Amino acid sequence: MVDFFQLQTIEEVLARLDRFPALAAETIPLTLAWDRVLAADIAAPADVPEFDRACMDGYAVRARDTFGASPSSPAWLTISGEVAMGQVAAQPLGPGQVQRLATGGMLPPGADAVVMVEYTQELGDQTLEVYRSVAPLENVVQRGEDVKAGTVMLAAGTRLRPQDIGLLAALGVAAVPVRHRPQVAIIATGDEIVPITAAPQPGQMRDANSYALAAQIKVYGGEPQLVGIIPDRFAAWVSTIAAALQTADLVLLSGGSSVGTRDLAIEALRSFANAEILVHGVAISPGKPTILAAIDGKPLFGLPGHPVSAMVVMDVLVQPLIARLLGLAGPEPPWRRTVSARLSRNLASAPGREEFIRVRLRQEGETLWADPVLGKSGLISTMVKADGLIRILRHTEGLEQGEAVQVWLFP
Amino acid sequence: MVDFFQLQTIEEVLARLDRFPALAAETIPLTLAWDRVLAADIAAPADVPEFDRACMDGYAVRARDTFGASPSSPAWLTISGEVAMGQVAAQPLGPGQVQRLATGGMLPPGADAVVMVEYTQELGDQTLEVYRSVAPLENVVQRGEDVKAGTVMLAAGTRLRPQDIGLLAALGVAAVPVRHRPQVAIIATGDEIVPITAAPQPGQMRDANSYALAAQIKVYGGEPQLVGIIPDRFAAWVSTIAAALQTADLVLLSGGSSVGTRDLAIEALRSFANAEILVHGVAISPGKPTILAAIDGKPLFGLPGHPVSAMVVMDVLVQPLIARLLGLAGPEPPWRRTVSARLSRNLASAPGREEFIRVRLRQEGETLWADPVLGKSGLISTMVKADGLIRILRHTEGLEQGEAVQVWLFP
Repeated sequence: MVDFFQLQTIEEVLARLDRFPALAAETIPLTLAWDRVLAADIAAPADVPEFDRACMDGYAVRARDTFGASPSSPAWLTISGEVAMGQVAAQPLGPGQVQRLATGGMLPPGADAVVMVEYTQELGDQTLEVYRSVAPLENVVQRGEDVKAGTVMLAAGTRLRPQDIGLLAALGVAAVPVRHRPQVAIIATGDEIVPITAAPQPGQMRDANSYALAAQIKVYGGEPQLVGIIPDRFAAWVSTIAAALQTADLVLLSGGSSVGTRDLAIEALRSFANAEILVHGVAISPGKPTILAAIDGKPLFGLPGHPVSAMVVMDVLVQPLIARLLGLAGPEPPWRRTVSARLSRNLASAPGREEFIRVRLRQEGETLWADPVLGKSGLISTMVKADGLIRILRHTEGLEQGEAVQVWLFP
Repeated sequence: MVDFFQLQTIEEVLARLDRFPALAAETIPLTLAWDRVLAADIAAPADVPEFDRACMDGYAVRARDTFGASPSSPAWLTISGEVAMGQVAAQPLGPGQVQRLATGGMLPPGADAVVMVEYTQELGDQTLEVYRSVAPLENVVQRGEDVKAGTVMLAAGTRLRPQDIGLLAALGVAAVPVRHRPQVAIIATGDEIVPITAAPQPGQMRDANSYALAAQIKVYGGEPQLVGIIPDRFAAWVSTIAAALQTADLVLLSGGSSVGTRDLAIEALRSFANAEILVHGVAISPGKPTILAAIDGKPLFGLPGHPVSAMVVMDVLVQPLIARLLGLAGPEPPWRRTVSARLSRNLASAPGREEFIRVRLRQEGETLWADPVLGKSGLISTMVKADGLIRILRHTEGLEQGEAVQVWLFP
């Protein structure tokens, strides 16, 4: 009989990830910081902008000088100069005066608004007709209106998006403190597994999983290291795991869903002095024969050999671990990766475990249908046909046709 | 008055992108192919798997030998050998016989099913008790069940996900034909713009846009080239654009939302022999002063200088262009990047243009609220606070509090 000492629920496994702390910080150039995770809060060192500036092309004015202006009764003001872009607007603005300036130009002392060029006409060099009144601060970005000095604008644990990068640039943060990307060693195991460049002989299979898992690691923000294929021999396992632990922050053993391999994995892990087997079997389908261990404080996952099982366990359990190593703040809001759909057929489910079902999405008029993609978990083509997963909770007996489901989109 | 010769709608601009063909293909190692776009259909050169294999640990059997077996009336079968992993299962299976094999093992000739180890017990070395019947093909992955030789498994124009990478590995595709990543030159313009490492003097601003746009280019699948900052001088513009066109597939001019700069942009573009100005103003807010040109067949966008405007134009107009250069097949299905939410306040809209409003999402019980993030389009902090955009169509007068809206999530 398969000996799972004690199946753990997904929540129990996730709770065991708490022991693994975030990796160290490093400082990198801003040009490389997109999609990295901040390791420290970023406070604004100064106001942005540091001066009142125009956000429209036109004329700096005292707003009160335009009050009452209209096309039939324009205000006549005196053009007293021009603000050059990038220059201090040194010449003050007196009553009844205007100065030309463009978007981004600095307001001269005395001005409190900008009248848009569209509502004006120059009469000669010195006189401006203004056809519309402006309120104080109209068409002006005030000093500190974008960012106030001292405000924490981005918190540690933020994954940096393009606009966050833009903000950091505006603040002058050219070197960014981020978490190291987790280095993830992927060890493929199995006497039947051959390199992808080999022509498999009868009985052999190509090492598809290493490549799929490596791409998932990139999606999660880690850096994969393809260790290669090792045979199902104790000595090879121990030496390869030991070597991987030297350079990696996380080790993945791919394969081992057969009884013999699973026993070998446990035996190999137990041979390390500071090894602790935290999880040996998870109440999840597919993915039950998953192992989680800590060796000298570093995490190691033993993943099932079926590609669908391995990829589901990656999304459900390994991604949260990598998020911890990255120091990502809080769980991702659920709406970032899910869509609501209707299930197009009944799905039965065995009790006592959570089931993840591959689905393909299909828009039909107003309705988004989730069509289950059936097929054994050994078939990677079923993942290729699918757009995401639906989760059937442990205490549910199944789902009914037409039921609303949340589809967890593949990244 | 601002002279927009003819504002074009978003759809009109998108239609003008059709003239730009996909970039050339290159062949890259599979380890680098994640998130790249296939340049050719990939057909399976052979069946996967190429032999019938077990997908459970147990015993290869003739299914009929187990018919009627139950715990109270087990079948007794003869253990005639074992299939080694990765080896040809050469020894045929005779009637009444079983052979041990593990998940992934090759079925011996004569066997048509696998009985799981859980439902058996060995009595000595030679006899197996079987407590449950299996149907033919049960617990077997048949030859070609995952992939049939000759089937097109991935079509040209597919952006490769982790499971697609796994499939390519299974097919032995170690070198992958993909489209070149578009090289996108980003030229920042403006006499008031200073490098991000500079301390801006009064009247000056740091070059935030180059960095935000560069990160957006990475999101879209391109490779940004930060050209740097050029002053608002005709000669500098012409020489810098000419140099950028030598190496880039697409040129972005950042800045130029002020009247003078816009005129300078048009003047500089017109000075090229084979230049065609395709778009000069778009009926979109923010983002109206957008320019699209073709110079010697290469696309150039003139983007507004306000960071929010520039980033919105990138998502609405530049991303589709990069998708074309990448040869991406068809539009992305809308559910990949949108969520439904309820608007938390009324929003008025000016007719005659499409408006994009920044929103922050907030879950409150069952309801996902979209809270508009108000603020001038010159404020990048408003993008940092937002989770996505909602679109108010051209002929709509606005949106009402409580109305259902589709939120276009920021990547």
